[in-house]
Order: sequence, then C-alpha cells, then structure tokens
Amino acid sequence: MENGTAPGFNRRDLLTIIGLAAGSGAAYQAMTSLGLAAESSYKEPIQLSGAPKGASVLILGAGVAGMTAALELRKAGYSVKILEFNSRPGGRNWTVRGGDSYTELGGDTQTCGFDPGLYLNPGPWRIPHHHRGVLDYCRRLGVQLEPFIQLNHNAYLQSPRAFGGKPQRIRDVKIDFQGHVAELLAKTTSQGKLDAGVTKEDQEILLKALQHWGALDKNYAYTPVPASEFRGWDKPRGGGAGGRPTPSQPIALTDLLKSGLWAALENFFLYDYQTTMFQPVGGMDAIGKAFAREVGDLIRFNAKVVRIQQDDVKVTVSWEDAKSPGTVAQEVADWCICTIPLPVLAQIQLDAGPKLKSAMAAVPYASSVKIGLQFKRRFWEEDEAIFGGITFTDLPIEQIGYPQFGFNRGGKGVLLGAYQYDSPRAFEFTALPPAERVKRAVALGAKIHPQYEAEFENGFAMAWHRSPFTMGCAADWTEETLAEHYEDLCAFDNRLVLAGEHASYLPAWQEGAILSALNAVERLHRKALGQ
Amino acid sequence: MENGTAPGFNRRDLLTIIGLAAGSGAAYQAMTSLGLAAESSYKEPIQLSGAPKGASVLILGAGVAGMTAALELRKAGYSVKILEFNSRPGGRNWTVRGGDSYTELGGDTQTCGFDPGLYLNPGPWRIPHHHRGVLDYCRRLGVQLEPFIQLNHNAYLQSPRAFGGKPQRIRDVKIDFQGHVAELLAKTTSQGKLDAGVTKEDQEILLKALQHWGALDKNYAYTPVPASEFRGWDKPRGGGAGGRPTPSQPIALTDLLKSGLWAALENFFLYDYQTTMFQPVGGMDAIGKAFAREVGDLIRFNAKVVRIQQDDVKVTVSWEDAKSPGTVAQEVADWCICTIPLPVLAQIQLDAGPKLKSAMAAVPYASSVKIGLQFKRRFWEEDEAIFGGITFTDLPIEQIGYPQFGFNRGGKGVLLGAYQYDSPRAFEFTALPPAERVKRAVALGAKIHPQYEAEFENGFAMAWHRSPFTMGCAADWTEETLAEHYEDLCAFDNRLVLAGEHASYLPAWQEGAILSALNAVERLHRKALGQ
Repeated sequence: MENGTAPGFNRRDLLTIIGLAAGSGAAYQAMTSLGLAAESSYKEPIQLSGAPKGASVLILGAGVAGMTAALELRKAGYSVKILEFNSRPGGRNWTVRGGDSYTELGGDTQTCGFDPGLYLNPGPWRIPHHHRGVLDYCRRLGVQLEPFIQLNHNAYLQSPRAFGGKPQRIRDVKIDFQGHVAELLAKTTSQGKLDAGVTKEDQEILLKALQHWGALDKNYAYTPVPASEFRGWDKPRGGGAGGRPTPSQPIALTDLLKSGLWAALENFFLYDYQTTMFQPVGGMDAIGKAFAREVGDLIRFNAKVVRIQQDDVKVTVSWEDAKSPGTVAQEVADWCICTIPLPVLAQIQLDAGPKLKSAMAAVPYASSVKIGLQFKRRFWEEDEAIFGGITFTDLPIEQIGYPQFGFNRGGKGVLLGAYQYDSPRAFEFTALPPAERVKRAVALGAKIHPQYEAEFENGFAMAWHRSPFTMGCAADWTEETLAEHYEDLCAFDNRLVLAGEHASYLPAWQEGAILSALNAVERLHRKALGQ
Repeated sequence: MENGTAPGFNRRDLLTIIGLAAGSGAAYQAMTSLGLAAESSYKEPIQLSGAPKGASVLILGAGVAGMTAALELRKAGYSVKILEFNSRPGGRNWTVRGGDSYTELGGDTQTCGFDPGLYLNPGPWRIPHHHRGVLDYCRRLGVQLEPFIQLNHNAYLQSPRAFGGKPQRIRDVKIDFQGHVAELLAKTTSQGKLDAGVTKEDQEILLKALQHWGALDKNYAYTPVPASEFRGWDKPRGGGAGGRPTPSQPIALTDLLKSGLWAALENFFLYDYQTTMFQPVGGMDAIGKAFAREVGDLIRFNAKVVRIQQDDVKVTVSWEDAKSPGTVAQEVADWCICTIPLPVLAQIQLDAGPKLKSAMAAVPYASSVKIGLQFKRRFWEEDEAIFGGITFTDLPIEQIGYPQFGFNRGGKGVLLGAYQYDSPRAFEFTALPPAERVKRAVALGAKIHPQYEAEFENGFAMAWHRSPFTMGCAADWTEETLAEHYEDLCAFDNRLVLAGEHASYLPAWQEGAILSALNAVERLHRKALGQ
C-alpha cells in the first residue's frame, strides 16, 4: 500500500493540470504536500529491559505495528495482550490465495479462485532497501526476500491520448526523453548560451558528459546511431550470416512532449522506488505470519473494541466478540498502545483530550483498489518479454503489476490488474460490486494486453474503503496537516499512545508502522520507569 | 563475460581521453566500434526435420553453441557427435564452487575454498530479458531464473581522483546529474535561448516536464526540497514523535562534472543492462548442465582436437585424449560445426580457404579477469544496505559485484571482487600468480569496503587469457573488422562452418553463441538437403 507516497501517473496528470492552471511551480508544491518520499530512521534493534514489576500494556490491533510493539514490550518484561478485530494477524499485511474468503462492508463476499502458488498482496507489496526496520525484522524472524522490480524497461506507458492509445515501452520514453534533453542542452552549451554560472572548463566537461549520458552522436545530436545502443535495434543483432542489425528511430521530441507519458517517469526516480526493492517469497503475509509466530499467543482474535476508557492509573478497553456480538468484556492495563486505523477508531468511544481528537479528525484516509486477475498463461512474458515491473496507464486501472516470481517458467499467472491509489477512480471502483470491478479491469486492461479476453480466468478485487478493519487504505497527510497535527497525534494522551503507519512520516509503508511502534514503545518504557 | 559489450568505467575514462585528444565526437566513434549493444533476433524454436538418411555432423566444442547445435541437429535426424577438450560441458558457461580445482596455463592450480551454497560465475553471469534464445532454452530445459540487479542505487561509484577517494552512492551521482541538467536546460528555456526548432507550445511542456523529471523547485532550481524526494534525506523520515526529516544537499554541479563519475552511468542506460536481467538460480552452469542432460551422451570429453581436414565429401578430425596424450584418433563426418574459440583454433592445423583464415586472424580476444572473494559476513548488506548490484571504480579491480541471492539473510558471502574486461588491468592481473591476484583484489577493494581486511577468508581468480580452453575471454570485434571479416568468418568453408559468440553480433554473450549455432544449423540443413 506504499503507493501513498507515489504520485502516480493519473495523479501526476492532475498535478500537471494544477501546474498549468496555477502557474509554474504550483504542481511541485502540490506534489510535495501529497507525496512523501520515505526512508527509515531505523538504526538497530532496540534493547529495552527492566519493565516495572507487574506493569502491563494492552495493544489494540495485531497488524505490523501492534505485533512489533508486543514483541519488544514482552521482551522488556511487560505483561502484554493484543486485541484484534480480524480473525488473522497482519492487518493490511495480507496475502489472498485460492480458497480465501473475504466479506467487505456492504456484505459482498468474494472467495478467491486462484490456482495453488498464485496470490495477490492486496495491501503492501514491496519493501525499499532503506526500510531497515522491516528488513531487520525479516532477518530476525526468518522471512526470505526476493527482488521486486519497480522499473522494467520493457513494460509500458500508455495513455488513450498518446500515440493513438498504443502502449509505448518504458525504455523508449525514458531513454528518448534523456537523449533529447541531452541534445538540447549540448546545443545550447556549444552555442555559448549557457547560464553564466558554469565555467568554460565545466562546460567542456558537460558537453562530453552529455554526449555519453544521452547517447549523442559526434555532432551532439540524438540520432539512431548511437542512440540504438541505449534504445535497442529495429532488426536485432543476430548470430551467423547476416547478423548485422539495423538501428531504431527515436520518438520525435514534439511527440514525446505532447504525449504526456514523461509524467510517469518519476515512478522510477523517487527514492522510495529505487533499486534494490524486495518482496517476501510466497506473499507479503510471510511477515505478518512471522510476527505471529512470536506473539500469536498474546493475541485475542475477533475482538471488536467498542470503548476505550482511561484514568490516571489504568486503561480499560471494552470489546465484544465479532463472531457473537452482544456480550461486552473488558481488559484493563497500565498502558495502551492503540494501532487501530483512524477511520475505525473514530467510531469508538474514546477518552482522550481535544488535541488528539483534533489530530485524529484531521487525517483522511486514501482510497485504494487492488485487483488480482488470473490468466491461463503468462502471455506478458511469452508474447511481450515483460518480466516483472509495472505498466503505468491513465486508463482507470492506473497500473498493471506483473508477477515478480516464477519468471520464464510458463503456466498460469496472476497479474495486479488495477492499482488505484488516492484517485477518483478508486472511489468509482469501490462503488461497484466486486465482480463488476473485476469485469471492468479486464475490459480496460485488454486495451493494453489484447490477450486478456481469451486468457482471463478469475479475479479478486480489494477496495480498501470497504474494508471492515480499516475503512480506507492509509493516512493521507498533507504538509499542512503534518505541521498542525502530527506531533499531537503521536503524543501520549495520559496512558494511551497511538502507533501505526498513520503515526509516522512514512504513511502507507510498513516501515512507518514499525518505526512508530518502536518510538511508542521507547516512550512508554521511559514513562513506566518514571523517567 | 557479457561485458564485452559494456564499455566499463575505466574503458570510458580511456574514451574520454580519446575524445579530449581527438576532438569531440571521436569518443563516440570509438565507443560504437568497441561497444556492441546486443539483443536477439531469436523468434521461436527452430523446427528442422528430414535430415538425409545417414547424414552426420561432427561438432567441436561442448559449450553453449556446440550443445545447441547438437540438440537441434539430432532432433532433425542427423547423426551427431561432439568432441570437447574440457572434462565438463558448458565451456565458458561455468560456475566455481568449494572443492573445484582448476589449472591454468602456466601450471598454477587453484582449489576453490568457498563454503557450500556460495559460488563464482567466472564466465557469463547475467542474461538480458531480450536474449530470447537463452530464455527459451532455459524454459524448455527447466532452468530456473531469478533477477540480476545491474543498477543498485545504493552501490557505489568511486575514483581515487574524485571526492578524496570516498565512494559515492550511485543514487547521488545519477540523480544529481539529472537534476543539474534539468535545471540548466529549464533556465535556458525560460530565458528564450532554446534552439529555434522547439515551438513555444513544446517549450512550455518541456519546462513542466523538466520540473517533474529533474525534481526542480518552483523556480526550476535543483534544491534540497524537492530534490530529497529523489535523493533521500539527511535525517530520515521517522515514526512517532519527532518524525520530521531534514532534506539532503545535492552535490554541486562543478564537483560532479570534475569527478568524472558520470562516466560510469551508461552502465545503467545501455540496452544490454536494462531491467529485467536474470541469472540462473544456484549458478550460471545450470544452463550448461541442462543442455548436457539433453546431449551429454553425444559428448566425448578430454578430446583435444589436433587437426581438421576436409574434402568435397567429408570432414576428418584428428584428436588425442587430453588425459593421456600421444595416441591420435579420428572422427569422420559429412559436416563439421566448429565452436572452438579462435585463439585455440588458430593453433590447430585446419583445411580452410584464405577468407576464413584471414577472418580468424583478424579477431583478437578480449582479456578478462574475474575474482571471487569469500567473506565471513555480508557486511555490504549489514553495514551499507547494498543488496545486489555492482560498484564501479577506477581502481584496477574495476568492479565489485554483490551476490544476487540470499539477500538479508546474514551469514557468509562471496563477492565478485574484481571484474576487469578488455583493459590493461586485466593483463596486469593475468600476469600475476592467482594468489597474488586475490591478494591485490583484497587490498584494493578495502579502499571501498574497509571491512575487507577483517572479514576476508579466501578467493578464486580466473584470468581468461590463461584458460587452456579459450586463451582469452571473448571475441573483440571492431566496426572495421566486422565490416571486413564478419561474413567470411560465418560463411561455410566447404563442409565446415564456425559457430560461437565470436560468430555473432553479440560477442561475449551466450545469446550470440545460441544464435550463431542456430544460424549455422539452418544453413547446414539446407546444404545437406541440397537447397
């Protein structure tokens, strides 16, 4: 779900429009407030010890934040319990496989029809190499990782408004944009029109650098030779007799600019999406399950929290069994770490001061839809040489994600057939019944991969605003709300503290959940020790 | 060994010097003649059938080319035999593991001391997604693939002449170069100094595009905000209280230009190195072994060819047992496909016309050294968050390659501690005894990773010019030699035809070996059928 931090292609379009309407610069202001590049402040495992004798902590939510807190607090000597609304651990850390059943708000139930070994990660699906907290818990808990390819040069950029709707290889757009930019700047430099701040010596090096970096020819022009060294050949290089290739023709600058496809390129430049990225082998829920192996004995599942009370010495949480509602039970503890997503927490009666309540109310949740589609064969690999990576489109499906394992082996496959994040399209799709979402994703995806119609087998559509356990996808902070409310949201309110991706500068990322949990745990420990 | 097509960092330096000495443009001419971007003309499995009754083909060499030819010819109905000098199949497709022993020309024997599960691919180590021939045989023969990360933003670029020798993260050089270029071009554009060929409308889109693509601020300047969205933060984004990050500071343009580190960036742009790349799980020799499962029964190992004779009806090849020299045996066949590397073939008495002989003499072989180093722990991952990818340096080791599997699991690891290709350094290292090569690689690598000294355990150093079975690494064509000799090298000489990476426009790549073999097989079949 980490795409909270990724201004996607459509969002970008929107920003371009903002930019054009509001004057240059407005777009970046908007982006900076929406997009939150995210890295980790995690250094090493925390080492807490010496909890006061008998001190207890009640944790609400057995997602990644709640289980991180539970693991570290128990190790430090606290008596820990977790209440979890769901019947499984992990929260948004979740993998859907054949046979899994899920009922969304509104009552629609889907039972996943994927073949064995195939899956959809409806929540988080990738881990940056700089998310050291996630990586460290993966290492400690024995979660095996494999690469997640964010940028696949052979996947597509597509827009109905560009090139007659014909998908373009990411390679062509990315390489040609760079080549044209290099040519334009090299010409300006040779003509002595460069900004006065660049010395003559630097200009000479710049020219040489642009020539290499942009694949320019001896006249500093971006032409088929040597551009084909970067963008590939029309007739590929062969072996044996007649092996000589023929160069390929770059896209003309004016076509490239007017296509708008360049707007998607930042998906490959943002810090959050830079190599090396990972996914757990077999599905993202390997992480949730690994945590649950450690702290599963502390979790009471199907426990729906209905009231959170606190006074100066204790916290009292009332809950009912989600499977047989009506009877309310209570848990009492010295402290409470609450990781319940804000839209759900807002519906629970809560003893808290006005600052925390204002902060809670100030943070909307991004909408998101993710749709998994099973096909009879991996035609994207067999027919189109697309192995992993993501196609970005401004069709309403926004993205097509290709499976990041089992490359080149043939057989069936599950695509991520749509990934909408924080866009009007996510709301449109959320409003549809699940089967209709799947149907639309297939119809739209067929505009990029015509093989869809013949090869489609079944699908599963997750709309996060219809999730009973989150009622949205992830916290949608802005620069303004961060400045006004972030510290209040994270501050202790008497004996209660919030944790989760929403209580971090890495919203929508598991790293945010872990860092906020560790930060809450450290502060709680100091308070408990009276420091 | 595919780096035959990659002007590496040092080679680049050399080219820069050529460029500066010979005037602008010379460098790219040189690069185009040296660097051969390589893709595949492979479409689908060839389907040959109906070999003339009793027709026989003798194949020399059980490398990838020879075994490809054998597999397809036997299927078409030919009687096939392979003579192989080595005692194993695969040729340069080779993986060295603990316990393996290897004696190079000059008599030095190394026995590899790697721990179980660790390995070095002394020959080819990566497969581009557009090498459809290799991928198709992998699929047909059941070779499992995993990603090979060429560009890891968190690996380093390093030069003793730049930044006081301090390694720079690839991210910083790559992102900052792009940002500065965007700023310079945006300023020129706003100032109306752009080339007349760009319309006013396109200039407006260009400005907007540069702002997004280069992470420029509202004034089109490359400044810490929003640049940190691409290049990361000084104080990373945190969770809980005090989570706000602080931006990072880009490298100044003049420092970046003078560093020369930009010269290594093309290693991430060249078509041959674009995502998605692969390696076989467990070692590159999975491919050679898979071929050998199919055609192993046709191979006579330890067979040293000493003479190749032909007349108008047959080919006669004399060979002796490499393990007990002295007795010469003969094989006779209707046709011969010879995949013996040219430096070895040049030493064998061969009945061939002057055109083929001239072509053979015109192609030198690139030198190359690859050194595997085992360390007690994967400090590059644990201390430096480098997971896979390659560090480029202009120290004599040229490259450090990080293992592309078992990420984040801890334990021991084997680095590619040097990868020299077609450079004076390769000859320098080749001249040293193996133990000395390893020692130098450790001493030099320690300038980038100081952990080397404490963590090093053992090493294995392959110098291809001392390989008895190739006497060099791979064919080193130029534009000039290609134009003059390529077709002659690939042409049938009576009943003999050459195949291998050297007989392709993808020298040093396994794809070249496969395509040349398939091309030879097709022509042979047509000839045999009298077409």
